[in-house]
Amino acid sequence: MALKEPKIIRNKEEMRNWSRTMRAQGKTIGLVPTMGFLHQGHLSLITEAQKHTHLIVVSIYVNPGQFAVNEDLSTYPSDFAGDIEKLKSIPNGVDVVFNPQNLYDYGFEREQSGVKKGEKEGGIVSCLEDEKGRGIGHETWIRVSELEKGMCGRSRPVFFRGVATVVAKLFNVIEPDVAVFGKKDYQQWRIIQRMVRDLDFAVKVIGSELMRDEDGLAMSSRNVHLSPQEREQALSISRALFEARSAAKKGKNICSELRRSMIESIEAAGGKIDYVEIVDQESLETVEDIKNGVVVCVAAWFGKVRLIDNMEIDAS
Amino acid sequence: MALKEPKIIRNKEEMRNWSRTMRAQGKTIGLVPTMGFLHQGHLSLITEAQKHTHLIVVSIYVNPGQFAVNEDLSTYPSDFAGDIEKLKSIPNGVDVVFNPQNLYDYGFEREQSGVKKGEKEGGIVSCLEDEKGRGIGHETWIRVSELEKGMCGRSRPVFFRGVATVVAKLFNVIEPDVAVFGKKDYQQWRIIQRMVRDLDFAVKVIGSELMRDEDGLAMSSRNVHLSPQEREQALSISRALFEARSAAKKGKNICSELRRSMIESIEAAGGKIDYVEIVDQESLETVEDIKNGVVVCVAAWFGKVRLIDNMEIDAS
Repeated sequence: MALKEPKIIRNKEEMRNWSRTMRAQGKTIGLVPTMGFLHQGHLSLITEAQKHTHLIVVSIYVNPGQFAVNEDLSTYPSDFAGDIEKLKSIPNGVDVVFNPQNLYDYGFEREQSGVKKGEKEGGIVSCLEDEKGRGIGHETWIRVSELEKGMCGRSRPVFFRGVATVVAKLFNVIEPDVAVFGKKDYQQWRIIQRMVRDLDFAVKVIGSELMRDEDGLAMSSRNVHLSPQEREQALSISRALFEARSAAKKGKNICSELRRSMIESIEAAGGKIDYVEIVDQESLETVEDIKNGVVVCVAAWFGKVRLIDNMEIDAS
Repeated sequence: MALKEPKIIRNKEEMRNWSRTMRAQGKTIGLVPTMGFLHQGHLSLITEAQKHTHLIVVSIYVNPGQFAVNEDLSTYPSDFAGDIEKLKSIPNGVDVVFNPQNLYDYGFEREQSGVKKGEKEGGIVSCLEDEKGRGIGHETWIRVSELEKGMCGRSRPVFFRGVATVVAKLFNVIEPDVAVFGKKDYQQWRIIQRMVRDLDFAVKVIGSELMRDEDGLAMSSRNVHLSPQEREQALSISRALFEARSAAKKGKNICSELRRSMIESIEAAGGKIDYVEIVDQESLETVEDIKNGVVVCVAAWFGKVRLIDNMEIDAS
């Protein structure tokens, strides 16, 4: 099979011109936004996107706006050449890789640095504002006020505003018809869906199932940072999720009990819990017992690596 | 001259379809967003828009999202039939009037009302959240964090988030190439410019000069609520602005002195000052003396009517 070489675009205007030219020819465009270091999970998003549109754009951009200054922006893994090879290996491939250098470069700097401004807000600053000379002057943020509050929003206070904002930027630059997000980042997926609805973006958002390695670990670019021992410990997350689902199916539907036993097993394996929550699949509000569709969401640290995972459970 | 009858569109999908059909025919689209009760100031925005695009859409929508619950949403003047007549009277007219009933209707209601949620936030709620059954579930807001802080942002805490959000919605529904905003709402114009830059909207934002009645009062839909006596008193605003500019041209460039004398004359006339600020034209940061281009901005109450006005002063 001939491999398809994706066109690599680094410039916003060129990207939008490509999209508009294609649209004028009657083509539809699917977007899969990524931060690179692609794994099978990303590739499954692309396969999903291919079902919906004629053309596929994959964006590869590590967004400083969604990392707080104490988070792992500087160690986030990357392998652009390897990513391109993986994309070429997908049946039918992808058409464009959008790989901008800096999405927050507006061509001039304001007199006052973003750092100073961030500090005014009470010390919560993203890496965007921390990196002098990059992104200076960016001050527009999208917030999805209810959905962003719980779970990852509690421990990562700038994360979802950064994600929502960069996704809006990507939508405005690429103008896709469809965008595919992984349900691995469940809260993110729901937030993007809500943003699209509330701001009337002309983009259909599709959630694609999370992918697990053979041992059960949810695929994540961050897994590469796990030592073999940590990886072994981290399997406690997926085990706890499968056990919770199985218990629920047997009628054990009191969430406080399910949560307690999950926390115990993950901690026993050596994990440090960020949260274990059982929430409504759409509103992400905590539920007390499993009546309607819920999703069990976990975030836990193994060494220096924070992992998230989740599992939908529908009412029995 | 034959009058041009604008097409009236009330539905988002129909609106977007119209725009996309026109764009596919090579036409460019200009948007003039309004809250209706049109006056000569609005008509001048339309004339400006006509210079830039083939087709003109005027939106008429009183946006509950930008009014706080204690503000004048319920008394905001409207006259749809009169507006249409005025639009027909403009040379070359307009092509579409977009007049949605409720831009925040997403076709279903969430279980929890927006009111309850708004209260959680500490009592600051917009009329959007206050009106039961309308807009329930909307929770995505755009904030332009620095530019929104001063001036009108201080006394109207939900105003700019409501404006930025509804303008983003209109951009996503109408997909215009150009949008024209009045420099009468100076801070709003700068906020929209910044939002468009920061979120990469493919829309060119144009600021159009404010219009004054013959007596000097800045045109505003709210002027209709002024009694003859209040209107007389309100002329103190434009007089103070012209005097400040004239004093600055004569070398009196210390802003604290200019402000003090403006405040004195407006108060002497019976106005209640909300703010008088002399700020940089782009950053809207307070300046101490007039070196570069500044804008003098005023908000003041006359009876129950809050009026705003401004004047750009360039360095002599």
